[in-house]
Amino acid sequence: MEKNFVYADNAATTRISDKVLEAMLPWLKEQYGNPSSIYSLGMEAAKAVLNARRLTAEALGASRAAEVFFTAGGSEADNMAVKGAAQLGAKSGRRHIITTNVEHHAVLHTCEYLETRGFEVTYLPVDDKGLMTADQVEKALREDTALVTVMAVNNEIGTVMPIADIGKLCRERGVLFHTDAVQAIGQLEINVQKMDIDMLSLSGHKLHAPKGVGALYVRSGIDLPSLIHGGAQERGKRAGTENVAAIVGLGEAVTAAVTDIAPRNERIKAMRQRLAEGIVSAIPHSRINGDMAQRVSGNVNVSFRGVEGESLLLALDIRGIAASSGSACTSGSIDPSHVLTALGLSAELAKGSLRLTLGDHNTDEDVDYILEVLPETVKRLRRMSPMWQRICKEEGITDYTLE
Amino acid sequence: MEKNFVYADNAATTRISDKVLEAMLPWLKEQYGNPSSIYSLGMEAAKAVLNARRLTAEALGASRAAEVFFTAGGSEADNMAVKGAAQLGAKSGRRHIITTNVEHHAVLHTCEYLETRGFEVTYLPVDDKGLMTADQVEKALREDTALVTVMAVNNEIGTVMPIADIGKLCRERGVLFHTDAVQAIGQLEINVQKMDIDMLSLSGHKLHAPKGVGALYVRSGIDLPSLIHGGAQERGKRAGTENVAAIVGLGEAVTAAVTDIAPRNERIKAMRQRLAEGIVSAIPHSRINGDMAQRVSGNVNVSFRGVEGESLLLALDIRGIAASSGSACTSGSIDPSHVLTALGLSAELAKGSLRLTLGDHNTDEDVDYILEVLPETVKRLRRMSPMWQRICKEEGITDYTLE
Repeated sequence: MEKNFVYADNAATTRISDKVLEAMLPWLKEQYGNPSSIYSLGMEAAKAVLNARRLTAEALGASRAAEVFFTAGGSEADNMAVKGAAQLGAKSGRRHIITTNVEHHAVLHTCEYLETRGFEVTYLPVDDKGLMTADQVEKALREDTALVTVMAVNNEIGTVMPIADIGKLCRERGVLFHTDAVQAIGQLEINVQKMDIDMLSLSGHKLHAPKGVGALYVRSGIDLPSLIHGGAQERGKRAGTENVAAIVGLGEAVTAAVTDIAPRNERIKAMRQRLAEGIVSAIPHSRINGDMAQRVSGNVNVSFRGVEGESLLLALDIRGIAASSGSACTSGSIDPSHVLTALGLSAELAKGSLRLTLGDHNTDEDVDYILEVLPETVKRLRRMSPMWQRICKEEGITDYTLE
Repeated sequence: MEKNFVYADNAATTRISDKVLEAMLPWLKEQYGNPSSIYSLGMEAAKAVLNARRLTAEALGASRAAEVFFTAGGSEADNMAVKGAAQLGAKSGRRHIITTNVEHHAVLHTCEYLETRGFEVTYLPVDDKGLMTADQVEKALREDTALVTVMAVNNEIGTVMPIADIGKLCRERGVLFHTDAVQAIGQLEINVQKMDIDMLSLSGHKLHAPKGVGALYVRSGIDLPSLIHGGAQERGKRAGTENVAAIVGLGEAVTAAVTDIAPRNERIKAMRQRLAEGIVSAIPHSRINGDMAQRVSGNVNVSFRGVEGESLLLALDIRGIAASSGSACTSGSIDPSHVLTALGLSAELAKGSLRLTLGDHNTDEDVDYILEVLPETVKRLRRMSPMWQRICKEEGITDYTLE
């Protein structure tokens, strides 16, 4: 009998699609020219990079390919945008940044770093569903605000932020607006022009392109400083020989990601709903984190009382289910998720959380399998858990006993 | 008849070796886990990254795998080292940096950026062969010197810098020493411990690994600040999901690169000598740039009077020879090479330069072919060149006429 394997951690990373890998392979083999070289082998690589730039620009609704800068990933793009905007702002004495307290660490830790370099950061809180509004941004805006950076979709709970409203507000006030859209591209319709987005970060490996490549959209006219100085690649904005194969893969993958979003979402959302409802109905003392309406299609984030998240992940792994607790980038940390804490969850509930993220490759059978395995796993872990026994005793819980 | 193709631009980039690509492929296909994930698929990726880290550390003679930080390439590694060391130095009021005027732009432009941020940089000159000494560094050292950064091998003329001497000096004086060894790994025996190197940058695509990956060696005990903030990858020093496949490829490639350096060099050097001597004997008014003794094995850099480098490259490309003028990273620039200018070459000679860099894949037939094509190409270009006609007239040149 073949061992079951269900990959339900698509927000952590995705498998490279066959089509993307196929597009990449020539650039890993015989087409090895350096795009900066002027002979044919180099020019062909330069053309491939330009084509990927065009595809990426089109996918984002950008007006020009030259507005897309390739990076080594979403984190580098976030750093380039936030540090660059801070540096730009400082030139005219603007040293205030607005963000939220549920951003990815690539934004949060960059903001914290900037606080040590003379910048002031307002971390807007989210409500108990993980949502926030453009009004909050408006109230926080100051004369010296250099940048507003709000993620499009939260990586842990999948909540959707009102980036079009924030973009409109920032454009009116003449403040730069950056969005970390790493979890949004291919999930939501994103158009940088219609949504008044000045800068947008994306990551390849979240949308079936390889790891190690991403992009930063920067609206024409914004003279963003470099994060990596050196050669003249990426119009002098990001030095280093272009990662041709991965960039070609990204162009393919982004194009596929923004195609047929609605029907793909419909299918994924149906699976997600069945999964979420199945979990909370089968497992007492569980709760869904985040908002079920303002949420990308594939995300389920659920907390179980009296369960330690890491033990749950290991137990699921043994049964062939790949899932996460919080984001992949913070695993290994013993702190509870900053996102779940921001929603007001206790450390106990935050640590007893499970993130399941479904993608294009998941099937109804995957959902069936998770719904078969998860309830019995939680039950077993609770049975062994002194924490659960204490909770039951203290709170008089009798409906889910330890028999 | 098959079209001749001779790739003689191995200093610009190299073809991924079959063995390296083979090692990478599983990580581009079924082994797609995020190394930060704690389930099996993720742990396997983490193990592969750790193995590559060990291989890279061993190849450099480092004492611990944890001293190797993977980056997206040589430029990022240089930026991380130089900016990080500057930031460290500034903490104790040390704002002086020593480098040379022939560094790669990833170091030079980073130094220029730091000059705009309150740092002072000494750019040591090289002699007419492109060489410099540790004595020059010693004379330039100051109480407030935070960093000495000198490349191991020059990327344009292949000259070898006395990094062991400089390392010894810096260690004695308690000053951090970084070397950009992008052009040196696999060409020279490098041992970070024996050579007293504190930080060393390397790039994958210069040694038959893919583009988009590199590494920075940082000696234990140096608490280098991050260039890219975010997740806890690379022990919190470099955020961003690890480029697993490329890192695996780098581990393989670095190991192969440092194996049998001497016999490989012997073969390549014999080809290079025949090529260099063949060129200068067949083409009057040509001169080799750089030092022929203190030089890596594969590099020929030659200037032709009365020839425009870019026209020469395009003419060679038509005949199937891939070569460069200056470094790939600065092509497209209309300025003459900063390296050749630093050697004292006139703008005319610097612009009329050709860099041929041989590697493991080159053969004696490649050398024969270049020696067949290059002299007639230079002759033809000179015949069409008003610059050459002017030179001949002004200088009374008659031995290489325009008949």
